[in-house]
Amino acid sequence: MTSFRFELIHTSKKSRARVGRIHTPHGIIETPNFVAVGTNGTIKALDNAMIDKIGIQLMFCNTYHMLLQPGPEVVEKAGGLHSFIRRKLPIITDSGGFQVFSLAYGSVASELKSKGTKKSEGSVLKITEEGVLFRSYRDGAKVLLTPESSIEAQKALGADIIIPFDELPPYHVDPSSLETSLDRTHRWEERSLLAHKNSPRGQAMYAVVHGGVNTALREKSCAFLSKLDFDGFAIGGSMGKTKQEMHSMLQFTMPKIPVEKPNHLLGIGDLESIELSVPLGIDTFDSSYPTKAARHGLLFTKGGNVKLGKKENSVNFGPIDEKCSCPTCQNYSLAYLHHLDKAKEMTAMSLASIHNLHFMVELMQDYRSKILLDEI
Amino acid sequence: MTSFRFELIHTSKKSRARVGRIHTPHGIIETPNFVAVGTNGTIKALDNAMIDKIGIQLMFCNTYHMLLQPGPEVVEKAGGLHSFIRRKLPIITDSGGFQVFSLAYGSVASELKSKGTKKSEGSVLKITEEGVLFRSYRDGAKVLLTPESSIEAQKALGADIIIPFDELPPYHVDPSSLETSLDRTHRWEERSLLAHKNSPRGQAMYAVVHGGVNTALREKSCAFLSKLDFDGFAIGGSMGKTKQEMHSMLQFTMPKIPVEKPNHLLGIGDLESIELSVPLGIDTFDSSYPTKAARHGLLFTKGGNVKLGKKENSVNFGPIDEKCSCPTCQNYSLAYLHHLDKAKEMTAMSLASIHNLHFMVELMQDYRSKILLDEI
Repeated sequence: MTSFRFELIHTSKKSRARVGRIHTPHGIIETPNFVAVGTNGTIKALDNAMIDKIGIQLMFCNTYHMLLQPGPEVVEKAGGLHSFIRRKLPIITDSGGFQVFSLAYGSVASELKSKGTKKSEGSVLKITEEGVLFRSYRDGAKVLLTPESSIEAQKALGADIIIPFDELPPYHVDPSSLETSLDRTHRWEERSLLAHKNSPRGQAMYAVVHGGVNTALREKSCAFLSKLDFDGFAIGGSMGKTKQEMHSMLQFTMPKIPVEKPNHLLGIGDLESIELSVPLGIDTFDSSYPTKAARHGLLFTKGGNVKLGKKENSVNFGPIDEKCSCPTCQNYSLAYLHHLDKAKEMTAMSLASIHNLHFMVELMQDYRSKILLDEI
Repeated sequence: MTSFRFELIHTSKKSRARVGRIHTPHGIIETPNFVAVGTNGTIKALDNAMIDKIGIQLMFCNTYHMLLQPGPEVVEKAGGLHSFIRRKLPIITDSGGFQVFSLAYGSVASELKSKGTKKSEGSVLKITEEGVLFRSYRDGAKVLLTPESSIEAQKALGADIIIPFDELPPYHVDPSSLETSLDRTHRWEERSLLAHKNSPRGQAMYAVVHGGVNTALREKSCAFLSKLDFDGFAIGGSMGKTKQEMHSMLQFTMPKIPVEKPNHLLGIGDLESIELSVPLGIDTFDSSYPTKAARHGLLFTKGGNVKLGKKENSVNFGPIDEKCSCPTCQNYSLAYLHHLDKAKEMTAMSLASIHNLHFMVELMQDYRSKILLDEI
């Protein structure tokens, strides 16, 4: 079994952008790369054999969801997540913390809209030094998630890359509460690392850098986490209200994490953010956006987004993109996809998802080529 | 372009069961065979490349649906239905009559439950000698469907096998109204045939035998339609309340249609009905049942149906069927499919549909082998 290793191939002469290879027990992830999100162990509307065919090198699964359904026991009995979902290539899981807290506080977007008021259906019952007590959205049972139980669950899943348990404070938090949360998150991450090291099983663990948009706290987080024996660094926590705010935060933060280790930007993967972040040295991006956009009839092309539902597409008998080599563009016309969308056939969602993910794969290949030529 | 031709290969020594080959401009349909239903130009939850891979030799598309969305003009502009939906293999379309009348009277099953009362949302406005005036379920527009307009639509679609325009009288109709309807349907079918012959375009047309469960009327229908130059015979109309009633009707009717032409049982394709009808000499069966069952988590195996949602499947790490060679069974476990179903992932529907259709393909292969050995 190959052990985890990051190979830094080239850093651009023009920016912090870099090309590398993350070696894992289940194969190589070329960076920078896009990580497809398969919350429940599948990319929505597709199956994992198709994901291999599209060329997705790293798949993100959500521990929180897998913990509640099918439960870690089932996955462990199956011989781990790779075996259960029949994926031979690398997988990353998160700690479950993000879901617990985002169910409590709502997504950043909805939080910003609602000025930070807690969602009424918030399911977090109590946050203590020990961990977080929440109510399962499935059966209402009380579940205590701690650094140790999150890592135990992630050990049962057996992903190539795992994430320590952290708190996601709401965006509209006062600076002192944010620092309290950050310090506790650091202690939780240290406990997570310890639990991981007690039974490494060939897995790698990325630290999660927090601190919101507060530079002092981001700096503190980088300093604290860099001293610990993590295999890589994920940028988590609130990224700000705007892409510009995120960009400033990353500009400040990225030089403060070790260059010799791989890094990951959590939950961000829209085209504009990728374009802004690759020059800052981000290695991997995960996002459900390309597949969600596909299911809503938004198709990516180099010439801009195509809205599947637009009337003019009803008689466009060419593919979504003449130059695209994806199975959807190779087989079907935009007019047919438009028809399937209008006829509310879920096949439209599958075919659109294939196209958008293939687009992401090619986009990231392009970034790697350009970085190697110092064009970025 | 191969012209339409039926090749009768073998008739069982034990029954009327027969093995044949229907030659069409888009390839061969081995009979007896199952015809998958792709109402809107796709089998639900799958794409047409997968349908080829599964080995579906004939696909059924509904003229009524294609007429309303995308409309015959779009399909004609695309160069016909095969080109529009990217299917190289044979397609059959119906006349649209069945949908118009079943929207008016409800399905046979719901009609039987409701004792034949018309559905309140019935959209048929008037039936005249000319045709049927109905209200589109899409935009409320009045549409007149006539034998000529149905055939015109089916010419625009360009399927290999087309169906004349017929009336579907409700099951609970009095004998005299049934005969009035039958006679009009015969005149409609003759007009359909004439419209078809005026521009054959390499298509074949099957007559639709009517008469409900009334033997005298079935006999009259066979006699009338056999004299006309149809390429094959479909059994339509009400098949009765029970499988036994359908079986009796077919036992009476089948010997009255020409053996040298292919035949089709309209809208029937459950396993029990196929088993009952193959020995009576039925060549093809169309039904949405295998894919509908799949979407509801009912999986076909030779050992009986497997209910995907059953708790015991959550830890069954074998495939749905050890002996099955379908892409679903080759790639995934029952436990994983159960999980996807519980997690409400549409991927579960796609993978289950692949399995059930593959089962139908193998089932029909088995029937053909057994008939060749005179075992049926």
